[in-house]
Amino acid sequence: MENVKVIIWGFGAMGSGMAKMLLKKKGVEIVGICDRNETRVNKSMYEVLGIERGDRPEVIIRENIEDVITEKCADVVLLATDSFTKNAFDKIKFCLEKKINVISTAEEMAYPMAQSPELSKEMDRIAKENGVTVLGTGINPGFIMDLLVIALTGACEEVHHIKASRINDLSPFGPAVMTEQGVGTTVEEFNKGVENGTLAGHVGFPESINMIADAVGWEVNKIEQTKEPIVSNVYRKTKYAEVQPGNVAGCRQMGYGYVGNELKIEMEHPQQILPEKEGVETGDYIWIKGIPDINMQIKPEIPGGIGTIAMCVNMIPHVINADSGLKTMLDLPVPRAIMGDMRKLIKR
Amino acid sequence: MENVKVIIWGFGAMGSGMAKMLLKKKGVEIVGICDRNETRVNKSMYEVLGIERGDRPEVIIRENIEDVITEKCADVVLLATDSFTKNAFDKIKFCLEKKINVISTAEEMAYPMAQSPELSKEMDRIAKENGVTVLGTGINPGFIMDLLVIALTGACEEVHHIKASRINDLSPFGPAVMTEQGVGTTVEEFNKGVENGTLAGHVGFPESINMIADAVGWEVNKIEQTKEPIVSNVYRKTKYAEVQPGNVAGCRQMGYGYVGNELKIEMEHPQQILPEKEGVETGDYIWIKGIPDINMQIKPEIPGGIGTIAMCVNMIPHVINADSGLKTMLDLPVPRAIMGDMRKLIKR
Repeated sequence: MENVKVIIWGFGAMGSGMAKMLLKKKGVEIVGICDRNETRVNKSMYEVLGIERGDRPEVIIRENIEDVITEKCADVVLLATDSFTKNAFDKIKFCLEKKINVISTAEEMAYPMAQSPELSKEMDRIAKENGVTVLGTGINPGFIMDLLVIALTGACEEVHHIKASRINDLSPFGPAVMTEQGVGTTVEEFNKGVENGTLAGHVGFPESINMIADAVGWEVNKIEQTKEPIVSNVYRKTKYAEVQPGNVAGCRQMGYGYVGNELKIEMEHPQQILPEKEGVETGDYIWIKGIPDINMQIKPEIPGGIGTIAMCVNMIPHVINADSGLKTMLDLPVPRAIMGDMRKLIKR
Repeated sequence: MENVKVIIWGFGAMGSGMAKMLLKKKGVEIVGICDRNETRVNKSMYEVLGIERGDRPEVIIRENIEDVITEKCADVVLLATDSFTKNAFDKIKFCLEKKINVISTAEEMAYPMAQSPELSKEMDRIAKENGVTVLGTGINPGFIMDLLVIALTGACEEVHHIKASRINDLSPFGPAVMTEQGVGTTVEEFNKGVENGTLAGHVGFPESINMIADAVGWEVNKIEQTKEPIVSNVYRKTKYAEVQPGNVAGCRQMGYGYVGNELKIEMEHPQQILPEKEGVETGDYIWIKGIPDINMQIKPEIPGGIGTIAMCVNMIPHVINADSGLKTMLDLPVPRAIMGDMRKLIKR
């Protein structure tokens, strides 16, 4: 039986992490990589990863996708280039029209119907026309604050209110994330960044809230989001960030989904460096009020980087096996680790 | 659009609980009930449940299934009569041959290929021949110690070892459960019950262990189970049981799944009355060793009765929508609460 063939588009932290994970797995091979970063273009994937090639075929990182993808040249493209559906759309369209399945890391693609209903219809149409599937996933959105919540409601006769909280540590991340979350800024700079939209914070609350609401059958008519500075009382320093007391250690993002005037879904996601400096324990928390109440916690939190890499790779068999069209995590079987031969999971 | 039509076969705690839950839902109706308990036969379902019928059509509980089921008379049968596949098989066959989908509460039916591979093939064949689906589910097996574990591994690059622990309180349950778990017996009586097989304990470890192993791609070649008495140091008393100090408050059941000689999956399920009398906190716990490690807890535990009722009812749309054949929770989309109109969830 032939190996499952994978192309990776975007070879930053996520794309290269997926490559490393795939190289440890049986029955799957990487057949092409596209990346525009000039330090990586035209280099061997193995050289960039610092992994011995052994007797595996060479894979050279290419700048132009046309040099990587031809019709049906792979089973799936892992697309790790964007956060927003509108930016990922043309790339997804390109892959689908080459009759290749797509898994996107773009946060908005976890539930694109939330903010891009027209593009979602278009992706669904193109995927069906070409007999392939497109899925967005990741640790959050995609799992922790939505799919896992939804799965737990499966044990409930009734659900009245949902709160999910993800308290994590940004310390391992680099300068880009520090800027996105306002780490090290003054409170004034932080608030200005929120106003002018340069402080991105977490992308995904409208997606998670709509995914939960659609899953349980609530008609959410209003979603609100706030971003507040996490002001540090102490000095905090990591490799990529330094925070003076009184300045900003991160961003506390909140999301609220209403059915009528009733607040039904609450999301809390404070992201900062070194939360333990002020006694804050990281973790993922879900509180469901209903019949029965369910109180879940995962401590420490599932790490975001590894989690997203794993979710994307682990969903490969489900996406290959799925009916054609745009799918979400609501449509497919539960994700699961792949410790055996990936070929055995494919229904040819 | 027509309501989803449900038949309930077996009207004990589970079957009647499902009826109560269904009566609160939109877009679904109960069209028949079969039960052999003479205190209920030929009575109105509403009378037995103590619920006002209002303007809903009468439903009379019948003793003979032939008086309840005719070909395609309903969308699904909720079968709540048995724990073991071999006992449920003829009933499942009967329903499938009437071209009606089946959801079974039988613990072994959560993963019947674990202990009844031949009957599983037979059910799959019959279901496919008749264009319908059969699923076994429940809170455990079916969710807490298997599907939820599996879903969490979806966030893992690698999994090396899994332990799941469910520490619950049997106090709400009646005399049958007390006998099954040896509550109130002496240690000698308990051990004798384990030896001669009259002490049932928990049914489901081989199912949960095989479901996890098959999901992640481990080839489990040995499963062991033990049952030990939970000896009480204090006096414990509930409505249906009384335990003297030195006697048995419940059964600590352990399950072990090996790949080669390596212990990969551990299950711990101590079931007793009034665990708080000796400072034991109830809860559901999952520990995954891998990349990353994941430590989950749900405190208190998801209650078994409500959980099983909810899982069976909430899976109705997934089962109606599924391809024909024998399915497990591994094959279908994640369970979810149904707070809207059930008809909207059916792909006709």
